[in-house]
Amino acid sequence: MAAKVTIATVARRANVSRQTVSNVLNTPDIVRAETRHRVREAIAELGYRANLAARQMRTGRSNLLAVRIDHFRDGREGAVLDRFLHGLAEAAGAEGYRVVLFTAEGDDGEIESYRELLGSYALDAFVVTHTHHGDRRTAWLLQHDVAFTTFGRPWSDTDMYPPPSPSAPPPFGHSWVDVDGAAGTAMATRHLIDAGHSRIGFLGWPTGSGVGDDRFAGWSRTMAEAGLAVAGLDRRTTNGFAEGRAAARDLLARRHPPTALVCASDLLALGAREAGDIALVGFDDTAMAHATGLSSVRQPIDEVAAACVRILVDELDHRRAGVTAPVRHVLRTPHLVVRDSG
Amino acid sequence: MAAKVTIATVARRANVSRQTVSNVLNTPDIVRAETRHRVREAIAELGYRANLAARQMRTGRSNLLAVRIDHFRDGREGAVLDRFLHGLAEAAGAEGYRVVLFTAEGDDGEIESYRELLGSYALDAFVVTHTHHGDRRTAWLLQHDVAFTTFGRPWSDTDMYPPPSPSAPPPFGHSWVDVDGAAGTAMATRHLIDAGHSRIGFLGWPTGSGVGDDRFAGWSRTMAEAGLAVAGLDRRTTNGFAEGRAAARDLLARRHPPTALVCASDLLALGAREAGDIALVGFDDTAMAHATGLSSVRQPIDEVAAACVRILVDELDHRRAGVTAPVRHVLRTPHLVVRDSG
Repeated sequence: MAAKVTIATVARRANVSRQTVSNVLNTPDIVRAETRHRVREAIAELGYRANLAARQMRTGRSNLLAVRIDHFRDGREGAVLDRFLHGLAEAAGAEGYRVVLFTAEGDDGEIESYRELLGSYALDAFVVTHTHHGDRRTAWLLQHDVAFTTFGRPWSDTDMYPPPSPSAPPPFGHSWVDVDGAAGTAMATRHLIDAGHSRIGFLGWPTGSGVGDDRFAGWSRTMAEAGLAVAGLDRRTTNGFAEGRAAARDLLARRHPPTALVCASDLLALGAREAGDIALVGFDDTAMAHATGLSSVRQPIDEVAAACVRILVDELDHRRAGVTAPVRHVLRTPHLVVRDSG
Repeated sequence: MAAKVTIATVARRANVSRQTVSNVLNTPDIVRAETRHRVREAIAELGYRANLAARQMRTGRSNLLAVRIDHFRDGREGAVLDRFLHGLAEAAGAEGYRVVLFTAEGDDGEIESYRELLGSYALDAFVVTHTHHGDRRTAWLLQHDVAFTTFGRPWSDTDMYPPPSPSAPPPFGHSWVDVDGAAGTAMATRHLIDAGHSRIGFLGWPTGSGVGDDRFAGWSRTMAEAGLAVAGLDRRTTNGFAEGRAAARDLLARRHPPTALVCASDLLALGAREAGDIALVGFDDTAMAHATGLSSVRQPIDEVAAACVRILVDELDHRRAGVTAPVRHVLRTPHLVVRDSG
């Protein structure tokens, strides 16, 4: 019903030039706030719908970034990826971009979504999460020359930072932003050592998960540096409350049980709390940690999200100028939030 | 660099007709999966970017819905609105729509975002959350004839369900979806009565919040129906762990203290748990409730999200056909998840 509304109609209603309407649509920052407001009000009143394709022709962009959102998993909400979504929407908004959500199952399902989103919505770039060994998604995006970055390292020998050999040819892999999980568990371990503990255990996930192995490494390295034994003091399990409790009970049943545990998640730590009286540090500083006085390693998620957006905007600026953007790797350090638990 | 890629280029590369490419872009369901896949691969390889405006002209839609996402609030993550976002992305995806996130401060900031999104992204519809008394956003959307629905009742005398008088003129207000919070706290109260409690208190938010007053009403009504006294047994405070603990301590210091509490949030209930030995039911069934054995009222958020999407798709179908969609009000009933706490 609004088919006949054009930029000229909007300009007449707002009593401005067509160029001013165009400026409000494409470069709002250069238009006075009062005028911008009047033009937008006229756009809304008239039901004008922007010609996105025309704008893309002018600016080379749709100003849309996409990120996958997973099925909600009970008992784990508020985890890092929900925080990340908030940070991403804010950082993108500040740069004039919007975030589009999509759902997908597995690597191949996500690649199918990339195809569909690129074809139907003219997406500018993707933010990829849940990076893992042998990730087909990043390979596909590189191969198809789509702008993207990842929250999470590639976790494969040929694509990590620093390069595997000084002679590795640039550009080396793809841009990514991540949090140094090993530094986080190292901090937690050192804190427990400073508090007088020497038998400090580790609860984490089965070997083979990049994130899990990284968190394990921070604990084992710090224990070794302090000359403390680690043999038999770690347990690996799937992430869960009951799993944390069972693993902690198992450790506490040893002849020389640990007096403290570094845990790869708050959920594992809260399970462990039910196993007996033991000092605990969790990971991710969730609402559960706040509410229950659990010490926890906190990831600087807002900074991660802002870095992802900065990388993508820079990448898109380079593409528009017809030059290759540098590959960037950003590794942020978490910090320890100390509460009553250890 | 992809400026010369057209539907014809894509058709040649995929070895299909231009009509087939157009079908994949606009009505993918009618194209065989193998062909659809080949066309999308060609689109991705060639860097073809769809002409969204042209598609809008054909289909009358951008297939984008928008919802506000708030700044992340520490200690309260995983709350209902994050769950809602997951559900919304899934339900929208199943209908061929995508969800766009935006950030805004206050009603007026959100209205400014509506203007910008309608003008720049040709949004089809909005999902409005955090409805409250005197909501300027819904008034603006109605006035500008923009398709929208709300998660949350309007909470104003002139726009509630059922209509204030049988003679109220249709269409009555706007479509909304909500959860019957009063039914939830009534369930919690009845459960505690059945468990043998008679002095049952209520911890909630200050009077004047629609959601808070609704949850209070379920408790007070159920107590009255059971012939139980409520005088002095409720405390109103801002939502928080320390606030819940302080309010519960205050109630437990009474001459005849309550033996059980119905709480308007899990956070209040977990605070109350630290005040002493008292049966507790929280609200929202968060990860904290899972992890700590707290009984809690669970909102059927996936159903709410699906109902919002159904209403909007139906509304857009009606608009495309040039007819007015019926105003729909959907009120879902929560259920009680019983754990150790009461």
